[in-house]
Amino acid sequence: TSWVEYGADSHFPVQNIPFGAFARPDGVKVCGTRIGNSAVDLSAVIKAGLLPASEPWAVALMNEDLSAFMKMTRESWRAARYAIQALFVKEAESKWTAELRTAAMFPVASVTPQLPCTIGDYTDFYSSREHATNVGTMFRGKDNALQPNWLHLPVGYHGRSSTVVLSGTDVHRPYGQLQADAADPSKGSVFAPCKLMDFEVEVGAFVGGPANAMGTSVPIEGAWDRIFGFVMMNDWSARDIQKWEYVPLGPFTAKNLATSITPWIVTVDALEPFRCPTSAGAQIDPEPLPYLRDPQYSSFDLQLETSIQSDVDCKEGAVISRSNFRHMYWTPAQQLTHHSVSGCVMRAGDLLGSGTVSGDNDKSYGSMLELSWKGSKTVELGEGVTRKFLKDGDLVSMVGFCQGDGFRVGMGAVTGRVLPPTDLPPA
Amino acid sequence: TSWVEYGADSHFPVQNIPFGAFARPDGVKVCGTRIGNSAVDLSAVIKAGLLPASEPWAVALMNEDLSAFMKMTRESWRAARYAIQALFVKEAESKWTAELRTAAMFPVASVTPQLPCTIGDYTDFYSSREHATNVGTMFRGKDNALQPNWLHLPVGYHGRSSTVVLSGTDVHRPYGQLQADAADPSKGSVFAPCKLMDFEVEVGAFVGGPANAMGTSVPIEGAWDRIFGFVMMNDWSARDIQKWEYVPLGPFTAKNLATSITPWIVTVDALEPFRCPTSAGAQIDPEPLPYLRDPQYSSFDLQLETSIQSDVDCKEGAVISRSNFRHMYWTPAQQLTHHSVSGCVMRAGDLLGSGTVSGDNDKSYGSMLELSWKGSKTVELGEGVTRKFLKDGDLVSMVGFCQGDGFRVGMGAVTGRVLPPTDLPPA
Ligand SMILES: [Ca+2]
Ligand SMILES: [Ca+2]
Ligand SMILES: [Mg+2]
Ligand SMILES: [Mg+2]
Ligand code: NI
Repeated sequence: TSWVEYGADSHFPVQNIPFGAFARPDGVKVCGTRIGNSAVDLSAVIKAGLLPASEPWAVALMNEDLSAFMKMTRESWRAARYAIQALFVKEAESKWTAELRTAAMFPVASVTPQLPCTIGDYTDFYSSREHATNVGTMFRGKDNALQPNWLHLPVGYHGRSSTVVLSGTDVHRPYGQLQADAADPSKGSVFAPCKLMDFEVEVGAFVGGPANAMGTSVPIEGAWDRIFGFVMMNDWSARDIQKWEYVPLGPFTAKNLATSITPWIVTVDALEPFRCPTSAGAQIDPEPLPYLRDPQYSSFDLQLETSIQSDVDCKEGAVISRSNFRHMYWTPAQQLTHHSVSGCVMRAGDLLGSGTVSGDNDKSYGSMLELSWKGSKTVELGEGVTRKFLKDGDLVSMVGFCQGDGFRVGMGAVTGRVLPPTDLPPA
Repeated sequence: TSWVEYGADSHFPVQNIPFGAFARPDGVKVCGTRIGNSAVDLSAVIKAGLLPASEPWAVALMNEDLSAFMKMTRESWRAARYAIQALFVKEAESKWTAELRTAAMFPVASVTPQLPCTIGDYTDFYSSREHATNVGTMFRGKDNALQPNWLHLPVGYHGRSSTVVLSGTDVHRPYGQLQADAADPSKGSVFAPCKLMDFEVEVGAFVGGPANAMGTSVPIEGAWDRIFGFVMMNDWSARDIQKWEYVPLGPFTAKNLATSITPWIVTVDALEPFRCPTSAGAQIDPEPLPYLRDPQYSSFDLQLETSIQSDVDCKEGAVISRSNFRHMYWTPAQQLTHHSVSGCVMRAGDLLGSGTVSGDNDKSYGSMLELSWKGSKTVELGEGVTRKFLKDGDLVSMVGFCQGDGFRVGMGAVTGRVLPPTDLPPA
């Protein structure tokens, strides 16, 4: 247990010790961790002599964000995390003078979270079998739900890093092209705000470690060690824009409007105690090609809860989906290895979205598209309020946490409110 | 005319004055321009007092690359280029002391080109009607060649910025998944080196100027002013990998192996004298939606020549394709505006690939896929040597230039040799 006080439902107990970057109340940008409701300035802790200033990982943590630290190795991240964790156990309380507490620990509400690192490239996968089956069934029918390649490789596409934003960022309903006649694409398109605004519940994996050289790939055996950690992610999606534009090269403006993430990166080490079989159990039909066989094929028992809160319609947020990261068919290690199989350089700071995490029943789907089954059913928010897709003013919140024995290890919530389209559409 | 000597076929006469970044022979990284066969260190020219050191554009050009300069406005880029150009006309020769020539001008072969800027995001479009028609005809037949959306928006997809590399970088033939049975996707895939290695002749547009805020877009009226300039680009493509993986989210490992560009960015102002109608002439059937109507709908009379040279088979490079940037149906301004229509942030340094530039006859196609019509015909390299796709050892070279009256303005050549797959495939 820790000398810092927090409740049993905190996502940030001493068992977590995530990494992040924030601006202190005085505006200085630092690397930090979070415990309970405190954001901890690690540069101040290092300067105070509580962490070994000459260790390369401590030098890296003196920067404005985690970019340099994330380029190091899992051993370094582990050493840093254990050293920091040791400062928050009960026995270490006396090391924290009143001065240091004032200098290094801030109420989270008083600091401004920053993107944890430079995100060189962002990639979004499509690795929940239930999600791919649901979407495939809606658009191609039950018999052709999964494309022939889906069980052979983690399908993914390149996304847009310029619009990866932090939790709390509001998102305007986008303008775009919508197919004019749903039944007849030859009638062309109209310019209008998206009508089918949606979220996707995802878990983002940040790549870490030294980049592989172009033309080489990341072997599956080492791939978990190239994952720095995880965040919650909302992959905002404009379904009607997507439908019109995505053939044949994939989603584009339907996805690049915004992707929201939580600011604290929860390390693989913090999640290891919650490692569990995937809901698929094993990949046997078919067995993946040898380069994709993950010796650690598994996931984390990470519970995912999504709620919608609307100022207009109801006071409380209503949980509309409960899913779990176990429902991933392809692991982050497999995603990383496959991504690099053609020789693609994977850099520290690259972000890999898991793909929408849907479970096997209609209370566990990770998007309104699935929850409302393409708009054919209503989703209850309580007090008679319903949704098919998102309305302006809706605050979407997704939390992810692992339940331990009397504690939780989690990412916190990624939130974002849907704002109306901007006043001035493009001329 | 200039006091610097160069031939009438140089791509870098005084009429060009491109921008780039390079490491001098002493290793110092600087912003520069190129004239004839000299790379010019602009920081040295500024320090020598030949350019106004206090101008914000001159301050920006004192950095290691163009990232800061490209964030400025077209007015700044223009002021800088005109001031530099004025130093290279005959009348200005006396300003260049022997000392300054030694300090600031280097044979291009003695410097190491650098990426011109941090490339935040790279996007690849698909905007040549002839190319899209050719590919569509091959895979869906003549009657369904163009997808219904193609004439309504510039189709594009997000690419991978981590593997955008400079001309001269060798590219390993990638490993990946290939469909096991061409006729039956249900038979799954095999792991092997790509067999259908290809290039795509493209022109890359670098975005410049202050980024638009998320949720707003770049109006078409201002879009040309957000284009900093152009480079030649080879979008290396693994056709067999692409075929298996691209459904339904687009090309992924087939494209992220490498994208090669020329190091010198030729400005829009340098190309303005060569502005010309597109080969489509006008967009009337259908007319684009109002947000996409480009008041400057046009292109540049930029000639594109692609050659293959093989050490094994033949001594000279054989020109296998002559195309022209006129064959773009959608303009870079339309691409930029559409890219941002959903509120996507467009940052200085972002790279937009035009899409393969194919003309209307089989000597003007911009890829081996089209030149060999999906491998059904051979492409002659001379002396009886033929190709359907690229062989290991092939050096692909693409040049782009505008022909003036006694001079050329061009990007130079983007070259890259296909190397065999790396020795050690992923385990
Ligand atoms: Ca997604
Ligand atoms: Ca391309
Ligand atoms: Mg997104
Ligand atoms: Mg490419
Ligand atoms: Ni706004």
